[in-house]
Amino acid sequence: MTEPVDPALARGQSVLAQQPFSVLLGAELSVFAPGQAEIRLPIRQELRQQHGFVHGGVLAYLADNALTYAGGSSLSGQIVTAEMKINYTRPAIGELLIARASVVSAGRTQAVARCDVFVVAGGVEKLCAAAQGKIAASPAPNDPKE
Amino acid sequence: MTEPVDPALARGQSVLAQQPFSVLLGAELSVFAPGQAEIRLPIRQELRQQHGFVHGGVLAYLADNALTYAGGSSLSGQIVTAEMKINYTRPAIGELLIARASVVSAGRTQAVARCDVFVVAGGVEKLCAAAQGKIAASPAPNDPKE
Amino acid sequence: MTEPVDPALARGQSVLAQQPFSVLLGAELSVFAPGQAEIRLPIRQELRQQHGFVHGGVLAYLADNALTYAGGSSLSGQIVTAEMKINYTRPAIGELLIARASVVSAGRTQAVARCDVFVVAGGVEKLCAAAQGKIAASPAPNDPKE
Amino acid sequence: MTEPVDPALARGQSVLAQQPFSVLLGAELSVFAPGQAEIRLPIRQELRQQHGFVHGGVLAYLADNALTYAGGSSLSGQIVTAEMKINYTRPAIGELLIARASVVSAGRTQAVARCDVFVVAGGVEKLCAAAQGKIAASPAPNDPKE
Repeated sequence: MTEPVDPALARGQSVLAQQPFSVLLGAELSVFAPGQAEIRLPIRQELRQQHGFVHGGVLAYLADNALTYAGGSSLSGQIVTAEMKINYTRPAIGELLIARASVVSAGRTQAVARCDVFVVAGGVEKLCAAAQGKIAASPAPNDPKE
Repeated sequence: MTEPVDPALARGQSVLAQQPFSVLLGAELSVFAPGQAEIRLPIRQELRQQHGFVHGGVLAYLADNALTYAGGSSLSGQIVTAEMKINYTRPAIGELLIARASVVSAGRTQAVARCDVFVVAGGVEKLCAAAQGKIAASPAPNDPKE
Repeated sequence: MTEPVDPALARGQSVLAQQPFSVLLGAELSVFAPGQAEIRLPIRQELRQQHGFVHGGVLAYLADNALTYAGGSSLSGQIVTAEMKINYTRPAIGELLIARASVVSAGRTQAVARCDVFVVAGGVEKLCAAAQGKIAASPAPNDPKE
Repeated sequence: MTEPVDPALARGQSVLAQQPFSVLLGAELSVFAPGQAEIRLPIRQELRQQHGFVHGGVLAYLADNALTYAGGSSLSGQIVTAEMKINYTRPAIGELLIARASVVSAGRTQAVARCDVFVVAGGVEKLCAAAQGKIAASPAPNDPKE
């Protein structure tokens, strides 16, 4: 894992540590650079569904969070994922999940990013999900009137 | 909550109880009928992100699971969510999440469904996410060759 | 078809008539009310692909445009579809396409809407595509810096 | 443009020529290789909307078709785009559109692919849309029972 001598990475890790849900799942931010983010999540029994695969919701969480970090690296203020789409491409069976996201288009208040989620089994990475979404600076994604 | 005298609902609840991730989060299947499913999730601190809202990954999990149940009600065999898209429409602040999914098109091996996720605050339901996705019977969503 | 005595509908039809692509395809705005829009498109040979079905791109155009109208009914200023997702549920074979869109969440500058696209064959409507997307008021969807 | 001495490309171009809608729009298949496809579309007035940008439906058509070609290169039989998602990232103003799609995951009967759509203005390519979708071999995407 990258050592947190990188100030941006250290700051990103600090934010992740403030997300109770990420702490519950055990996610670790391993890369955080302009337009890029990587989050790792060791697989354990609590993250699975009834067939023994990692639950799709875990993969969606990882994609959502990696997209937000990647997009947030190029935006200022409070950042949220406004929307995303995910294709599950393979049952996630293995020891570790790695989500890698990168920005494809960034504006002042919004960014579009993509994320590949890999499952590592026996040291081999295989794609298990592919996502794409939009990250927006505050206000809230759909700024409801009320 | 609906009483599990309904055999289909009881069977669905039994499957949910076999999903370690759903147990970790505390999800409850409250409706399971042909083409319909409702999953409830009490909000607690562990499900939040750093701003105090429920983490988007939790909403994505709920949508994914409700879509799978709704689609699975009209398909046979092992069921997976092949893909989905989610728009976050409002920060989820409140006591309870309710995800309601319904099938819009069903075939022999696939179904397309939609899901609305509501946050309940002070007894009032408000939409916080809207999703759409495809549910597929086995084999795995993208049946990788290897 | 609804008679254009409705000022909002007449205004919407006037905008559609200013879209050269909509004129090329032959689209007609048949409903335009707060949070709602319906666009009709008679099927002709030029809209098909090699198997005789309407080309998926035509269905995507219809969904995109109906979503924009539905969302635009609750937003002010220049309106664009920021993003959308479409599931094709049935080969579109028939005489007429009808896209019906409705807003599920509206804010000041953005709206999330859904759209069902039906194909009419022998007078019977059948769903051939289901879409969901976000509509945004100006500036451009991703407001690129350059 | 690539010269059609490549048999696969020539075959792909022949299929495109059988799509009346692609002929109506003026699309040209410029790359067709395993897991890859590129489609070009000269911009003309008929493809625009009321603000002078290329209509989003045209970009969606291009993405849909490029995804289908890319996915179809690794599948056999009749191929359809089952679903896709598109983010519009920039108003498309220029002389030419180029859609480049590549497969990220392929199975026996399905493939997931991504597509970038560029607008060329004054010889400079800029991303105007990013898409992701699933391509399926026959039967129809949702194989309706009726």
